[in-house]
Amino acid sequence: MDERLRKQLDFALYIDKEKNVLRQTRLSGHGRRENDAEHAWHMAIMAYLLREYSNSEVDIAKVMMMCLIHDIVEIEAGDTYAYDSENLKSQKEREDAAKQRIYSRLPDDQRDELIALFDEFEEYSTPESKFAHTMDNLQPIMLNNSNGGSDWLEHDVSSAQVYDRQKKSALGSEKLYEVIDGIIQDNIKKGSLR
Amino acid sequence: MDERLRKQLDFALYIDKEKNVLRQTRLSGHGRRENDAEHAWHMAIMAYLLREYSNSEVDIAKVMMMCLIHDIVEIEAGDTYAYDSENLKSQKEREDAAKQRIYSRLPDDQRDELIALFDEFEEYSTPESKFAHTMDNLQPIMLNNSNGGSDWLEHDVSSAQVYDRQKKSALGSEKLYEVIDGIIQDNIKKGSLR
Repeated sequence: MDERLRKQLDFALYIDKEKNVLRQTRLSGHGRRENDAEHAWHMAIMAYLLREYSNSEVDIAKVMMMCLIHDIVEIEAGDTYAYDSENLKSQKEREDAAKQRIYSRLPDDQRDELIALFDEFEEYSTPESKFAHTMDNLQPIMLNNSNGGSDWLEHDVSSAQVYDRQKKSALGSEKLYEVIDGIIQDNIKKGSLR
Repeated sequence: MDERLRKQLDFALYIDKEKNVLRQTRLSGHGRRENDAEHAWHMAIMAYLLREYSNSEVDIAKVMMMCLIHDIVEIEAGDTYAYDSENLKSQKEREDAAKQRIYSRLPDDQRDELIALFDEFEEYSTPESKFAHTMDNLQPIMLNNSNGGSDWLEHDVSSAQVYDRQKKSALGSEKLYEVIDGIIQDNIKKGSLR
């Protein structure tokens, strides 16, 4: 087998580990904690189905690929809960180191391509990255809302923290931000959010 | 919220259930059984990274979306193990009924679009569907091989059954079929396959 294909297949096998990176979000039906691979799969399909609500036209293949790979760095850097202020401070440094190590398993051109895609996601500047972030924010809030806001109750999260986390969601989609805002307001009313 | 968006969000929440549909494949490192959502996520990324080996040029966004949705019907129809000859007989009928029920949760245009995409995948006729099927076959054999072929040992699978299952993999990619064939031959030699 040639070196290029061997590296691609080694990378494909390596990312299997993302299925073991657990998030704080629980599956609907008060299920177990979700993992990063499931979250990414869910986001990519949602991006495709909801793309008409993006504020700007997007290259949907690019958005989907961004959604699918955006948490691969967490195989080495770990998941950082959105409301864990201590770990959020070191998140970028941990993820940048992991990014170099992990994507260097690929052939150079694909390493550069995927790092560029991940960086674009992180920079929050293009229509694609903004819309992918809206999915990253909408998907867990949708699951949590289906469970009566239990993730927030479990971690004693306040509405101010959620609004801070969601403050950029409207940059990707004004329409979907209305949905998010409605969910937050409902959960404040019923006491799941301080 | 308007009816269209409500239906789209209901569908998005509904497919969360795919994370509970377990396959027979075990994660690398002799892990737990994989679920359909994880399998689909893995296939979609592999399709993107390995698309240069497709026998024909493909619309990669279409291949990825096919990979992501191809097992949604299993939320209602259940997973059918590739070597379960009894359940394979009723698979198409069960999946067709599930397909109508599940995709009818979407607005009509998206219901029709996703059913057409699923049918195209099942029909194995376009370059996109052939390449998506190659991913559907390569991904689990890669994981199983990383575990020394333990899925086959557990289910007492023969090399004739695996070759029968894999017989169309070369239609999507001659090059990746060589990889699959190499894995099968290795596992015959070391006794994981009868």
